[in-house]
Amino acid sequence: MKQFISVQDVPDINALVKKALDYKQDPLKDQLLGVGKRIGLLFLNPSLRTRLSTQIAARNLGMEVIVFNVDKDGWALEFEEGAIMSGNTVEHVKDAAPILGQYFDILCIRTFPSLKNREDDYSELVIQSFAAYAGIPVVSLESATLHPLQSLTDIITIQETFKDNKRPKIVLTWAPHVKPLPQCVANSFAQWVNAWNGADFIITHPADYELAGEFTKGATIEYNQDKALEGADYIYVKNWSTYTDYGKIYSNDPGWMLTEEKLQLTRFARVMHCLPVRRNVELSDEILDGPSSLVTREAGNRVWAAQAVLSEILIDKS
Amino acid sequence: MKQFISVQDVPDINALVKKALDYKQDPLKDQLLGVGKRIGLLFLNPSLRTRLSTQIAARNLGMEVIVFNVDKDGWALEFEEGAIMSGNTVEHVKDAAPILGQYFDILCIRTFPSLKNREDDYSELVIQSFAAYAGIPVVSLESATLHPLQSLTDIITIQETFKDNKRPKIVLTWAPHVKPLPQCVANSFAQWVNAWNGADFIITHPADYELAGEFTKGATIEYNQDKALEGADYIYVKNWSTYTDYGKIYSNDPGWMLTEEKLQLTRFARVMHCLPVRRNVELSDEILDGPSSLVTREAGNRVWAAQAVLSEILIDKS
Amino acid sequence: MKQFISVQDVPDINALVKKALDYKQDPLKDQLLGVGKRIGLLFLNPSLRTRLSTQIAARNLGMEVIVFNVDKDGWALEFEEGAIMSGNTVEHVKDAAPILGQYFDILCIRTFPSLKNREDDYSELVIQSFAAYAGIPVVSLESATLHPLQSLTDIITIQETFKDNKRPKIVLTWAPHVKPLPQCVANSFAQWVNAWNGADFIITHPADYELAGEFTKGATIEYNQDKALEGADYIYVKNWSTYTDYGKIYSNDPGWMLTEEKLQLTRFARVMHCLPVRRNVELSDEILDGPSSLVTREAGNRVWAAQAVLSEILIDKS
Repeated sequence: MKQFISVQDVPDINALVKKALDYKQDPLKDQLLGVGKRIGLLFLNPSLRTRLSTQIAARNLGMEVIVFNVDKDGWALEFEEGAIMSGNTVEHVKDAAPILGQYFDILCIRTFPSLKNREDDYSELVIQSFAAYAGIPVVSLESATLHPLQSLTDIITIQETFKDNKRPKIVLTWAPHVKPLPQCVANSFAQWVNAWNGADFIITHPADYELAGEFTKGATIEYNQDKALEGADYIYVKNWSTYTDYGKIYSNDPGWMLTEEKLQLTRFARVMHCLPVRRNVELSDEILDGPSSLVTREAGNRVWAAQAVLSEILIDKS
Repeated sequence: MKQFISVQDVPDINALVKKALDYKQDPLKDQLLGVGKRIGLLFLNPSLRTRLSTQIAARNLGMEVIVFNVDKDGWALEFEEGAIMSGNTVEHVKDAAPILGQYFDILCIRTFPSLKNREDDYSELVIQSFAAYAGIPVVSLESATLHPLQSLTDIITIQETFKDNKRPKIVLTWAPHVKPLPQCVANSFAQWVNAWNGADFIITHPADYELAGEFTKGATIEYNQDKALEGADYIYVKNWSTYTDYGKIYSNDPGWMLTEEKLQLTRFARVMHCLPVRRNVELSDEILDGPSSLVTREAGNRVWAAQAVLSEILIDKS
Repeated sequence: MKQFISVQDVPDINALVKKALDYKQDPLKDQLLGVGKRIGLLFLNPSLRTRLSTQIAARNLGMEVIVFNVDKDGWALEFEEGAIMSGNTVEHVKDAAPILGQYFDILCIRTFPSLKNREDDYSELVIQSFAAYAGIPVVSLESATLHPLQSLTDIITIQETFKDNKRPKIVLTWAPHVKPLPQCVANSFAQWVNAWNGADFIITHPADYELAGEFTKGATIEYNQDKALEGADYIYVKNWSTYTDYGKIYSNDPGWMLTEEKLQLTRFARVMHCLPVRRNVELSDEILDGPSSLVTREAGNRVWAAQAVLSEILIDKS
């Protein structure tokens, strides 16, 4: 694997999932693979789970890890070609990225969307510019529109827990929230489940919350949540802000919160969420504290997802 | 040892002190004990000495260390059971802690009191919640009401320096300061000296600065500083804000500053302070720069205190 | 080498340059030299390249590295002897530094000038106080008036790229900028090139931008940039604020920006800059994106400069 920015970088999803589950059984089986290699974790936006799980994964492979948190405001990067830099930006990505490329063997980056300018966000200017100028493999730790390490983790968690002899039915459902959130996790989950093609996949949300068609293509869209949940094996709960009229909260109907009562509509569905979760807003306490919740398992699996990805990149480089 | 949140977690203080002094002689004697184990240092409040000494201690035992500074405001945790999280809190400790429990073998936490609500602070809500939900041993790097690593260090420093064939007389004295400070260091020192039971112990402070009886029980309280200092072998200097009318500065009489003149009342007493210290407010230059000061030695001993504690926890887990 | 705060700490510049270039050929040749040694990187001001390159250098020598970013405002240090600390400063350097001296074998510090009080800045109060009280070797990661790791890197880069059988002509030229910047990089480059004594050295800047004579002594000062550039082999581009009427921007004539056209005056000169650079303000895109630019190479060489310095200090201590 040359880089890991979207599912399109992955030649074989099932092989990557299997690799991750093998690491879960034996975390240190490739502890010498990354010895003498250095990985940089550049956070233009804050992170907890992603930072920790990626750092652990890299160390399990024997890599040297350097984390650097850079306040987006403090280190205002310029991305425009030909800019006269007499304003607020202090360094051009064309100058910054090649140096990180000299210091590291792999560069991981987290960068959030502005939620103000859809065209800029969906062009993935920040991560694509680093990928273009760093000269080394770039791994997304969540970007403006996608969160592939989370999605890989989610597929791993589904593979690990589904034992029936049929295709699982997976429902991605919008949930209420108090703030306008990026579409990344939902976009990315949709993109991965569609590419994986191992499930019946339904996306449900209120009207006005359509996601970008490039990611949802292949899924059934259903505006009636109850109907969508019927017979579900997995429910992925996530809020996102509007895509069409970009970055807004339209309705925020509390009736979309997932509750134990709604679970009755499903086939003993397991409930997933990328965390952090607003309890009793997105998901009820009874679900999060009950046996159907997979959220802690998902967070734990983040380590094995990251380890499988870094391992593939190390093997490709060597 | 299962956890390290207060002196009550320590089965044998003298054995722990001896262990620390053994590490001081030979820092790397157990350098393989923690190999393959990972420790997380979670700072909800800033730290210098505690962070560095704990990190060094963990590395001396061969552990992998991950430090994460989390701005309490940026990562506003919810602690209330059943909360509807539609306000400012972004994640419930019930969801956050178990994930840290998956990522680490030991979790160290620093969290300061609000100094606004005594009941909340003295319930130790933050560290006790992490201890309840993380599922791994929790070590306090200073909490709302206690600072056990500092107190262990202080006992170590006294043991290391006292050579007379008698019980030392130890005086904990309040000192002036410019800001209202937590009671942690004073509470914890009192709790440890009382539990240790190896000294005659006097606490002196102006009226209105009473500490909580649960920690001072066993010590003599004396409002006259001069009288308290008579014949002292060790003087522990520390400011704290009021406990009864919580978190205030009542009087701030500069006459309570420890000076060379007051040292004349003692039995060549050694002077202790946890640092940072306000020079010529809490303690005079002449003492800090003179032979009776133990403050640099105490700070150095923080490493061995942390190393002994982590070692005991690692042994208990294995 | 006992410390590394200015060129005066270096007994033999050419030997140090050679050592750095040897590490560039074989980064891990001394990977056991620093095993069991601990280095602290204390950032009182932010850093990207310096932090990463120093951290990598120390790891290449087998050292344990601990980075601690301390907000200068959050950790307001007192430097005045005899101060009554009832104001904003929270800790005296006399108390802070010796503890770092107990925790580490080498202490690296970055601290910027105020640009308000020239006398204070040019006394190098902060780094000199740490050097005085820490009791261990101190390495500058850029101080109030100098940036020796950058200057060593610059000499390395010149040595590495100059193949002619003559003394190179080196021009340090002032460039426009949008903010008042320290004089450190310019002071330090001048100090090193003069001490190195391996080049013809000209400094060019508008009137009113004179640097301190203690650093420029030995160089030719030329106010006409075009004339200075004639026949140059290397052009070092850097902005600085005024020294005489301290910390100001006087004129900011865009005519001083280095362009391809001005390069025609030189002897195919290579262009250097310490980064970050304001494109099309200090230096034109065409130069930065063209073959004469050495800026990425310089940034890469920061690793070998730091590694040579740390190596010399480790050897001196052992």
